[in-house]
Amino acid sequence: MNGATALIETLADCGVELCIANPGTSEMHLVQALDSVPQMKSVLALFEGVCTGAADGYARMTGKPAATLLHLGPGLANGIANLHNARRANSPMINIIGNHPNYHIGFDAPLTSDIDTLAKNYSSWIKSCSTNDTLAQDGADAYTATLRQTPGSAGQIATLIMGADAAWGESTGPVMPNALPQRSKIDEQTIQKLAPLLEKGGSNMLLLEHHGTDPAALALASKIASKTGCRLMTGTFPGRVDGGPGAAAVERLPYFPEQVLATLKGVENLILVGGQIPASFFAYKGVPGQLIPEGCKVSRLSHIEEDAIDALQRMAERLSAQNEPVKNFEKVEIAKPSGELDTKSIIQSVAATLPENVIVATDSGGGNAAYPYCQNSTANTWLSLTGGAIGQGGPCATGAALACPDRQVLALLGDGGAAYTNQSFWTQAREGLNVTTVVFANRSYNILNVEYARLGVTEIGDIAAGLFDIGNPEINWVDMAKGFGVPGATADTAEELSSLLEKSYETPGPFLIQANAELQR
Amino acid sequence: MNGATALIETLADCGVELCIANPGTSEMHLVQALDSVPQMKSVLALFEGVCTGAADGYARMTGKPAATLLHLGPGLANGIANLHNARRANSPMINIIGNHPNYHIGFDAPLTSDIDTLAKNYSSWIKSCSTNDTLAQDGADAYTATLRQTPGSAGQIATLIMGADAAWGESTGPVMPNALPQRSKIDEQTIQKLAPLLEKGGSNMLLLEHHGTDPAALALASKIASKTGCRLMTGTFPGRVDGGPGAAAVERLPYFPEQVLATLKGVENLILVGGQIPASFFAYKGVPGQLIPEGCKVSRLSHIEEDAIDALQRMAERLSAQNEPVKNFEKVEIAKPSGELDTKSIIQSVAATLPENVIVATDSGGGNAAYPYCQNSTANTWLSLTGGAIGQGGPCATGAALACPDRQVLALLGDGGAAYTNQSFWTQAREGLNVTTVVFANRSYNILNVEYARLGVTEIGDIAAGLFDIGNPEINWVDMAKGFGVPGATADTAEELSSLLEKSYETPGPFLIQANAELQR
Repeated sequence: MNGATALIETLADCGVELCIANPGTSEMHLVQALDSVPQMKSVLALFEGVCTGAADGYARMTGKPAATLLHLGPGLANGIANLHNARRANSPMINIIGNHPNYHIGFDAPLTSDIDTLAKNYSSWIKSCSTNDTLAQDGADAYTATLRQTPGSAGQIATLIMGADAAWGESTGPVMPNALPQRSKIDEQTIQKLAPLLEKGGSNMLLLEHHGTDPAALALASKIASKTGCRLMTGTFPGRVDGGPGAAAVERLPYFPEQVLATLKGVENLILVGGQIPASFFAYKGVPGQLIPEGCKVSRLSHIEEDAIDALQRMAERLSAQNEPVKNFEKVEIAKPSGELDTKSIIQSVAATLPENVIVATDSGGGNAAYPYCQNSTANTWLSLTGGAIGQGGPCATGAALACPDRQVLALLGDGGAAYTNQSFWTQAREGLNVTTVVFANRSYNILNVEYARLGVTEIGDIAAGLFDIGNPEINWVDMAKGFGVPGATADTAEELSSLLEKSYETPGPFLIQANAELQR
Repeated sequence: MNGATALIETLADCGVELCIANPGTSEMHLVQALDSVPQMKSVLALFEGVCTGAADGYARMTGKPAATLLHLGPGLANGIANLHNARRANSPMINIIGNHPNYHIGFDAPLTSDIDTLAKNYSSWIKSCSTNDTLAQDGADAYTATLRQTPGSAGQIATLIMGADAAWGESTGPVMPNALPQRSKIDEQTIQKLAPLLEKGGSNMLLLEHHGTDPAALALASKIASKTGCRLMTGTFPGRVDGGPGAAAVERLPYFPEQVLATLKGVENLILVGGQIPASFFAYKGVPGQLIPEGCKVSRLSHIEEDAIDALQRMAERLSAQNEPVKNFEKVEIAKPSGELDTKSIIQSVAATLPENVIVATDSGGGNAAYPYCQNSTANTWLSLTGGAIGQGGPCATGAALACPDRQVLALLGDGGAAYTNQSFWTQAREGLNVTTVVFANRSYNILNVEYARLGVTEIGDIAAGLFDIGNPEINWVDMAKGFGVPGATADTAEELSSLLEKSYETPGPFLIQANAELQR
């Protein structure tokens, strides 16, 4: 048995069930190994950003790492934007990057580059000196690393940069999986210190992020809120929230710094559960970066790597809140809208037709704006753009659909972001995935119109306007999706959009809807 | 005046005429500056790999750097694959990467990441600590860095990672351009040492790479060959060669290591001009990585950073070869083929219809195979995939067309590679560029079928075959290009292909031809 087969068998034994690949010559022995280990499903993507974004979506839905198979430095580089998002989502993932053997690197062949420096950008674990003897154990260690919480920083991404000779060399075979790491528990002193703040009442807030947005954590937080009157809030872009009627109701921080400060105004104690002090997404001249309102004290219940469920459970017990009611999102009948499409009517159509137990993936402003409206519609799992790198929604939806073939997936994409990783349509068609994509086609990087206006510029010059305008030529998304094997249609009215959404949910396989929205500045 | 405007004015004063941008919020002041400096043309691309690949194509055609404008770490990451190719092509380029101000980075906002580590992968010059006071001078220094030859390594890519506060802060204004660096000359001893080898005759070869493939260098090398009987050879994937009838004839190294060794067999003295010892593109078990045939001695006339034209001029003088004839590629009438399409008939159609003074950009096996056939057709400039990172041909063609609006550009792409950076079609449509794209649609990563067979595997299992097969679903390239605003058509026969090629050359603007080729293993 060679190193490649020992690696893939080891990963399969650890529990890796999916490899999303874009292989090249240096990975031929790994392809051969994947061919011999059918219990690990191999899925091809036409671009590495789809591989990594799909592995992120898979991880968010399963809590488990998928493997990606990428081709040297450039193949990895193409996947980094979505690895950045995955790091910010705390998603476990194992990247296997094929490389030249060490002895070949000195000859400076065309694809030679410094892969380690690229991997440092997003990895919490890197190994680049594997041999045929160590490769299987390195795979087992990579798996463990993806499930180990790194103190003080998000990210459970392991990167195994593997010389081809480690893959083709003789191995003693697969190794046993390692014991799985556990989240650390918070100190009892923290409970004792924070409980009186909550008991006292007043304007307190739990800011729930990462492990703090687990459904169990949110339900416990809701009990604490019922008992103490505190508010519950998630960050602006949580990796995953299971919401809708039947799930604990929680607010969500808005995007712009002024909005965040207004939302937090009057909060006396901001208690961090799993996350960090809210920061402005971007820096603006004269606007604070760290968003703490006047008179607010910040405390921490649990760090990102700690067990937020355990912490909230113990806090609920300390406060005698275990039997308090969980306040859930309420079901509200949402009428299907009519007339012209704009962001509001698109969102209303989406909310009015939302299928039960849907997974929503979005990397767009419009998609993010749909979140609150959909929470009163049906049970849903919402996957956000954690790291701000656009081109994530389509791949993330693809991975979520691979993880959950029995659930409907809805991708709410902007036309700017969807152009980045349009290759995800092809994998959706190939795998027959139940992904409905709505492209908010406003023919603009519209957020930049807004941001440019924030500079105080009242008139946008032609050159600047040209750099925000993606409507010349207009992108025909139906043609593009068709090019990749995904059927689609355009919607010009809210009635058409609702009808197409319902039809797509009834029909197996992927579907694209180009929602022709008016540009709203 | 703020730092951003001082930077853009300085770059324009240095001679930067083009900025290929995909901006975000952290670059708003740079957009404002571009708006105020219209002598630098701003071109929008829908994906950063198009920005960097187009800047590479522009640099190859002009010898000058374009600027790119990219959005933080993920925006840069998306451009790295083509930056890798640009580094391997020795293309000058200035990347301006917007970043958070330093004071904001500590707040760990979502888009925060370690951009410097990414830039190290491909940059020969990096600055990430600019302030509003230094930004203009940093721009001038970046420009100079792109034209300075770095000893011992290819790459003239400068990366300016710019905090938004450096852009919005007050500046004293633009600075004067620096003096331009010159290539260093080789030592006279080298001439004295190598001339006798060439004078002696026997089986000698000049291997011409980088500056050694400049038309003036090739003409001088041809005179030396006429005098001494040596052979002339370029590397497998030179960044740019101006060939065709009227240009000095030169052979080209093949791809596979066994082919390279066979080509070099019997060579007694291999003399490197601007490049390095041939290396196998990939490592194979039991196959040498450095490709020097038995009994061959390797010498060097000039290093990558040295002046190859001067070196060849002095060598020609030393050998009294100045007045020897230059042996040019000969013009041969190429008949238009008929019948079914395969790689051979596609190439013949391309060669038979090649317009005068065409620029050919290719990142495909088929495109590379077309090179020798086209050298007997018409004068042409050939831009190859220098670094092996696919998805380069379309962006490179786009940048070449921006550089040379009066020349026809032909992109010869594989269907695998073209899927990577299909967004380049949109910029071609937007700018009305005369780019004809031929997609070799064999519905396969066919090189991987070949490479897999090289492992000694005679039957490809279903899973492995699935990882090379991009024909399920088939990509409809005409639909996809149409989606991005580029008209196109399919060709199923050689007659149709020749006719479509000729029609596209007569019609202004971009055009796509999907050449439906039979898969040949």
